[in-house]
Amino acid sequence: MNTMKKIGILAKRGVPGTANVIKNLLLLLEEAGFKVFVESEIASLLKIKGYQRKRLPSLVDMMIVLGGDGTLLNAAGLIGDRGIPILGVNLGGLGFITEISIDEIRSSIDKIASKHYDLEERIMLSAEVYHQRRKVFTASALNDAVINKSALARMIEFDFSINKRYVTTLRADGLIVSTPTGSTAHSLSAGGPILYPTLESFVITPICPHTLTNRPIVLPDRFILDITIKIGDDVYLTLDGQVGFSLKVRDIIRVKKAGYKTRFIRFHKRDYFQILKTKLGWGER
Amino acid sequence: MNTMKKIGILAKRGVPGTANVIKNLLLLLEEAGFKVFVESEIASLLKIKGYQRKRLPSLVDMMIVLGGDGTLLNAAGLIGDRGIPILGVNLGGLGFITEISIDEIRSSIDKIASKHYDLEERIMLSAEVYHQRRKVFTASALNDAVINKSALARMIEFDFSINKRYVTTLRADGLIVSTPTGSTAHSLSAGGPILYPTLESFVITPICPHTLTNRPIVLPDRFILDITIKIGDDVYLTLDGQVGFSLKVRDIIRVKKAGYKTRFIRFHKRDYFQILKTKLGWGER
Amino acid sequence: MNTMKKIGILAKRGVPGTANVIKNLLLLLEEAGFKVFVESEIASLLKIKGYQRKRLPSLVDMMIVLGGDGTLLNAAGLIGDRGIPILGVNLGGLGFITEISIDEIRSSIDKIASKHYDLEERIMLSAEVYHQRRKVFTASALNDAVINKSALARMIEFDFSINKRYVTTLRADGLIVSTPTGSTAHSLSAGGPILYPTLESFVITPICPHTLTNRPIVLPDRFILDITIKIGDDVYLTLDGQVGFSLKVRDIIRVKKAGYKTRFIRFHKRDYFQILKTKLGWGER
Amino acid sequence: MNTMKKIGILAKRGVPGTANVIKNLLLLLEEAGFKVFVESEIASLLKIKGYQRKRLPSLVDMMIVLGGDGTLLNAAGLIGDRGIPILGVNLGGLGFITEISIDEIRSSIDKIASKHYDLEERIMLSAEVYHQRRKVFTASALNDAVINKSALARMIEFDFSINKRYVTTLRADGLIVSTPTGSTAHSLSAGGPILYPTLESFVITPICPHTLTNRPIVLPDRFILDITIKIGDDVYLTLDGQVGFSLKVRDIIRVKKAGYKTRFIRFHKRDYFQILKTKLGWGER
Repeated sequence: MNTMKKIGILAKRGVPGTANVIKNLLLLLEEAGFKVFVESEIASLLKIKGYQRKRLPSLVDMMIVLGGDGTLLNAAGLIGDRGIPILGVNLGGLGFITEISIDEIRSSIDKIASKHYDLEERIMLSAEVYHQRRKVFTASALNDAVINKSALARMIEFDFSINKRYVTTLRADGLIVSTPTGSTAHSLSAGGPILYPTLESFVITPICPHTLTNRPIVLPDRFILDITIKIGDDVYLTLDGQVGFSLKVRDIIRVKKAGYKTRFIRFHKRDYFQILKTKLGWGER
Repeated sequence: MNTMKKIGILAKRGVPGTANVIKNLLLLLEEAGFKVFVESEIASLLKIKGYQRKRLPSLVDMMIVLGGDGTLLNAAGLIGDRGIPILGVNLGGLGFITEISIDEIRSSIDKIASKHYDLEERIMLSAEVYHQRRKVFTASALNDAVINKSALARMIEFDFSINKRYVTTLRADGLIVSTPTGSTAHSLSAGGPILYPTLESFVITPICPHTLTNRPIVLPDRFILDITIKIGDDVYLTLDGQVGFSLKVRDIIRVKKAGYKTRFIRFHKRDYFQILKTKLGWGER
Repeated sequence: MNTMKKIGILAKRGVPGTANVIKNLLLLLEEAGFKVFVESEIASLLKIKGYQRKRLPSLVDMMIVLGGDGTLLNAAGLIGDRGIPILGVNLGGLGFITEISIDEIRSSIDKIASKHYDLEERIMLSAEVYHQRRKVFTASALNDAVINKSALARMIEFDFSINKRYVTTLRADGLIVSTPTGSTAHSLSAGGPILYPTLESFVITPICPHTLTNRPIVLPDRFILDITIKIGDDVYLTLDGQVGFSLKVRDIIRVKKAGYKTRFIRFHKRDYFQILKTKLGWGER
Repeated sequence: MNTMKKIGILAKRGVPGTANVIKNLLLLLEEAGFKVFVESEIASLLKIKGYQRKRLPSLVDMMIVLGGDGTLLNAAGLIGDRGIPILGVNLGGLGFITEISIDEIRSSIDKIASKHYDLEERIMLSAEVYHQRRKVFTASALNDAVINKSALARMIEFDFSINKRYVTTLRADGLIVSTPTGSTAHSLSAGGPILYPTLESFVITPICPHTLTNRPIVLPDRFILDITIKIGDDVYLTLDGQVGFSLKVRDIIRVKKAGYKTRFIRFHKRDYFQILKTKLGWGER
């Protein structure tokens, strides 16, 4: 019998062939003595009993997630502070946070059964929105919190405070607060640096700043960031590019490190720089 | 009698004190023998006869526009191909394209009456949208055409063609096609270079490109650019940050030089580099 | 008989196998009725009569240059204002300005003999150094003029004038004035935009500017740029990364368009954007 | 009697009026019961007994340094691992690491005498050069280690390893390894992010990288970085822009955190973001 005996399964929607992969995975897991809880949408494809996405984390000890980095971001948000380890299975190419490819599923299950794996922890950020001093929204993110104007709006002006002390006023199309995990995603596109995954830091990267003097800034992740919308008609907060929330002028967005971390199952030392080169072409001619 | 005897007046809305400035301007112009056509919204503030914004360009030989660079962009769009010269009067600080401050109104009217002025021409771009091969939108811009995803959408993938020849496929949050006039506006925020105003060029600047190898590219303004939306749920085209149009997957946006130029009344040689320094802090310590 | 009956041959030094390539080329050219003038260093390898590098342009109607883009830059500098067309033969990979590969030599000679080719002209810049108002150096470049501090010096401060009018004072590690041809070379590394090759423009790109507000600026190539060294111990001017000249405080470097263009022999329409993608990975995922 | 009873004085050379400031400082310190050791060059100006720069750190408990950030960098290098606290007195404008202005000298001496101050520690980096496996150079830096080609050389190619594991090969004009303290100096000019001073990180910023995919990367300061020169004729290592060392092909430069920190005397909470705004114009319109 395994200490991790209950395993949940989540998958990216609409990827052809996923049903077969999961059917096979299911057999392998049950052979290995695990009890498996499949998310209801996949379950209906397989014509087996399914469980609601939202309930899944409360039922299992571990989550296997099939998809890409986006699917893992989604699963991490779902799991929140429950500390359930995630095994990411790539359905496409190499990912920054997925761990194994479909070919490696069989051998991976043996390693899980025999507890031959490590847990890698990644910090998450938490974002709260205060409207007229009342908290109206809270969510967490593994990658980033992005404040962004709509396509038709002109720009956002926001006050930026650190540890409740006013720092500066910015005008930009938006602002990204990113964890090290997220530094290779939206923040990089906006001109931010790459942060090694274990750094206890956030990077603040403006999107199209309206002054020439703005630069990305890397801050300790123990800092509490308050962003107050001063001007901006049609402004949204998105977490990991997935959860959106509409912001009003004078709303305060508080971003800080979440009280918990996301845990990934790792079988082998990952060469982070190799992933940088493969995924981003970093440093290659 | 003046050759430019009919003058239209447009103004930025909601600037306190504008009514008095215009009342004074009106007196000075009428004293100088001009017939003045005031836009209806301002006219109602002054309790005089007004003319519809849209009709104004067809009635006058010259347009005086009170506001900032944004108001002038708007007026340029309204005038379109009519070739009516614009005199920009700053209601705020120094602008890139406004010409005089309120203090200079009196002396400027004398110069107009005595024809002591130059006309500076600026290229405009024209943008057309084709939906299922049918032209569904057309507009012109003095600054830029911006294709941008909504705040909640993930990214846009577009094919980019030059002179009807496929060039490359880009993934980004958006794309800016800017005239030299617009190069100090949104394109600069997105990392584009400054283009001297008289260059016969466009600059193409991606917004948050999802590859590290993208760079702004400066092209001759005789090139015809076709941008085809490949992926993107909630994508908009905006011209000069003012006119918005919703785009669908497979829509083609054609951007080229407009067949006409916008003409600005200039009284003195403007030192472009001085404006760069004052407005942008360019090159200053 | 050919109108271009005298052909010079230049080659990059130290590339293994070049002697055989040239021996073959020589036979083909002589068969086709051309008189060939080989640079003396190559000639000595082939044990045939050679001609001094410097004299070569005065003897021939056309120059075949074997090497990479660097070798062509060098040949363009050698030819200067003589207007002799250059055919660039790639010894390595694809180049921005080389035209054919070794495999295409035979067919190219037929095209030259039958005059089936186009001439593509590229602007060159000219740089002059004035020391105590006396011209002490002059040279031309196809790519760029770079003012750069030595590795151990701290920074350069220079005054920048356009058309003899003071524009601004910059502090930086250096400054690049680049033609469109050079925009994909050093200027791109320093953060400059790509300029389409036929643009009549220069781009001015600072190297490590000491202010956050500096940005590359694209100017008409009819402008005359004067750069005066204000502070800087150990400063050099280099043209096309090849010719170096030591600069003193108060020296003035004048950069303008050269009075002549470099002419390249082209057999087929080159797809500039394809070269961008192949050489730079531009816009690729 | 003070625990810090022996104070050394260093000053920037060639600043007019410094002699008088130091004469006054000397009187105040002696009145307060300190024994003062003045660097010999200043001492000769004051016609008093002086001490060799190099010996000074071995004689004193604390160092007062008059000048700018550059003078402090120099003093930090001189003090090395001795842990002697530094008080930086600004002779010019506000500095990133200087603490007080001349006006504040009197009150500061009282605070030192009564021990009303804090010590702020900043990590330093150590750089070693290995030539044919033999260590031939070692030095430390508060800001940065810069590997840079000479003005006339073409580029450097280097292999980059982290913790003795090969990471990538870069071609660039140079490479900066910067501490958080140095992140607002040369690294910022080369496009690097700002790092909050207390972060336990280095930032690696390439200078004019010859590929478009290079980006600054922030790494834990416990990592050991090995840079091997592969190609490069005329390459130098400089520490804090002050100490230079000539590098040969195949030399290995090892950069790691120094075993000691530099300690600065602080009287009041410094608002780091205020300094960013004042010194860099960061985030200002």
